[in-house]
Amino acid sequence: MIKTPYLLFLGDAPDQLAAKVAQGIKDWRPENAVGQFRLEGCKADVGLSDMTLAEGLEAGAKTLVIGVANRGGQISQMWKEALIEALAMGYDLASGLHNLLNDEADLVAAAKKHGRILHDVRIPTVEYPIATGVKRTGKRVLAVGTDCSVGKMYTALALDVAMRERGMKSTFRATGQTGILITGDGVPLDAVVADFMAGSVEYLTPDNDPDHWDVIEGQGSLFHVSYSGVTMALIHGGQPDALIISHEPTREHMRGLPDYKVPDMAAIRDVALTLAKVANPDCKVVGISVNTQHMSEEEARSYLDKVEAEMGLPAVDPFRHGAERLAEALAAL
Amino acid sequence: MIKTPYLLFLGDAPDQLAAKVAQGIKDWRPENAVGQFRLEGCKADVGLSDMTLAEGLEAGAKTLVIGVANRGGQISQMWKEALIEALAMGYDLASGLHNLLNDEADLVAAAKKHGRILHDVRIPTVEYPIATGVKRTGKRVLAVGTDCSVGKMYTALALDVAMRERGMKSTFRATGQTGILITGDGVPLDAVVADFMAGSVEYLTPDNDPDHWDVIEGQGSLFHVSYSGVTMALIHGGQPDALIISHEPTREHMRGLPDYKVPDMAAIRDVALTLAKVANPDCKVVGISVNTQHMSEEEARSYLDKVEAEMGLPAVDPFRHGAERLAEALAAL
Repeated sequence: MIKTPYLLFLGDAPDQLAAKVAQGIKDWRPENAVGQFRLEGCKADVGLSDMTLAEGLEAGAKTLVIGVANRGGQISQMWKEALIEALAMGYDLASGLHNLLNDEADLVAAAKKHGRILHDVRIPTVEYPIATGVKRTGKRVLAVGTDCSVGKMYTALALDVAMRERGMKSTFRATGQTGILITGDGVPLDAVVADFMAGSVEYLTPDNDPDHWDVIEGQGSLFHVSYSGVTMALIHGGQPDALIISHEPTREHMRGLPDYKVPDMAAIRDVALTLAKVANPDCKVVGISVNTQHMSEEEARSYLDKVEAEMGLPAVDPFRHGAERLAEALAAL
Repeated sequence: MIKTPYLLFLGDAPDQLAAKVAQGIKDWRPENAVGQFRLEGCKADVGLSDMTLAEGLEAGAKTLVIGVANRGGQISQMWKEALIEALAMGYDLASGLHNLLNDEADLVAAAKKHGRILHDVRIPTVEYPIATGVKRTGKRVLAVGTDCSVGKMYTALALDVAMRERGMKSTFRATGQTGILITGDGVPLDAVVADFMAGSVEYLTPDNDPDHWDVIEGQGSLFHVSYSGVTMALIHGGQPDALIISHEPTREHMRGLPDYKVPDMAAIRDVALTLAKVANPDCKVVGISVNTQHMSEEEARSYLDKVEAEMGLPAVDPFRHGAERLAEALAAL
């Protein structure tokens, strides 16, 4: 568990997109961030107060979170100086970078000297059990995509907000690096050893109140040949009571796989539901989440109406129009 | 790659079953084993000549393979003395034990001193790539089970023999510890990190002659909630041209999951084929492999006839009656 609140490190981000982890924290858990800390040349701004390391501490920050992608696959000298200073001042560090903080001898030495923790959220720190399949109390919902990167994390976070606004009990359960940094906790599922994948999802979504919902962050797709095993483990380890189909309608082929067509939503619905019923015979598909970012408002509305009629399920773009109708569908279950 | 031939270490095996790895090597790759090396009190015998370490070397052995399960989760002092002596004499060691040879300081020191290799086949030694899904040349067959431990490895090994006896080009591709020790090579799939599972199967079954078959060892089951992600990665990483359904008809519930019923063969056929066609639209289910060990000969024959009629596919017990009809079905593709 990463100590909150955070100061968000934007470094010398070359553009706004490079700071998408910081933006996610600001958008979804603004209460977790006291401000942003930028170095010279930084071209990103997530809309929080600019603070020095000292001002961040003053405002209560416990952890400096690296909210920006690094360039060229290494942690630069400029970053190092700021990070070592932060450790000396009393910050823990947290990062989802491919280059691990714990692989940098100078950061490790500074953390040891000052008694601070280096969180690399790409690396599991728990010895997860093998899944038992035992039925757990409480309810769970999982978004399954026709492809990778179609908006499953966004859907889950928006759904979590919409459910809590309705007075439902809900917890977003992160399964990827960005989600873990946003919430401070979760399972880095793509880095878990094969035999323990489903068990790590069971661990992430334990027994809970009968009316509590875990909103589990989806990963990959059953039809994406590189990562389908991870999706499978989410479906069986998560024992979902409800599935939401996530889709991005303008994609020409599966992400990173030019020879693979994106499947129909109906194909994903059928195979995901068949497999989900192995772990939870009562599982139902309750709605569709469409990422319409590459469509005009008019195209989006017309596409959503068509999908809703064809699939007989509420179809929304949670970014554009909110996730209330998906929350409603879960409340009605 | 583990150097062959082997001398098979049976240690002080308490019974025949404890030596099943050694038995597998003797049954399937007898040319890989010069003899067996037993300690005082050993109650297993795989039917090879008893040899001392010196006699094994004389007969050409390069590696001492631990062909027996250990007791109580540790490598005993009695074993240690024999293993250290083997290293001093010039043997490499290979093991599929949960307790790693490389975690034992005295074995590591002895291997270093004598320039020998300690192979722990439970641990991947390759940095596998992420799967690309690119179509490969050559053909592949995979057994998919209704449950774990229904005879998928046995089916693959028997099929490999039957295909080579027909003059077909075939290679057994090991994906588990026993299979790796039997053949000296393979991928320990259950120990691979999630993101690289399908990639490791692509790595294991590369481009080959158009008429060459990789016979891929199956793992888990799409309907076994603990391990289904591993099975999924085999189906997509393997790009099989042909699937064989493996089943054990007397099992009362899924292995290790008392609340889960074993699915119908038709259910596995349908979902496995749907998912396999994502990676290989031409994939076909070509036969059924039934493990009839808990049935009389008469019961087995009658059950196989019934399955064959119901499924419209050749149904055989490869242990009892050989895998020729499955090889024939592949040859006819």
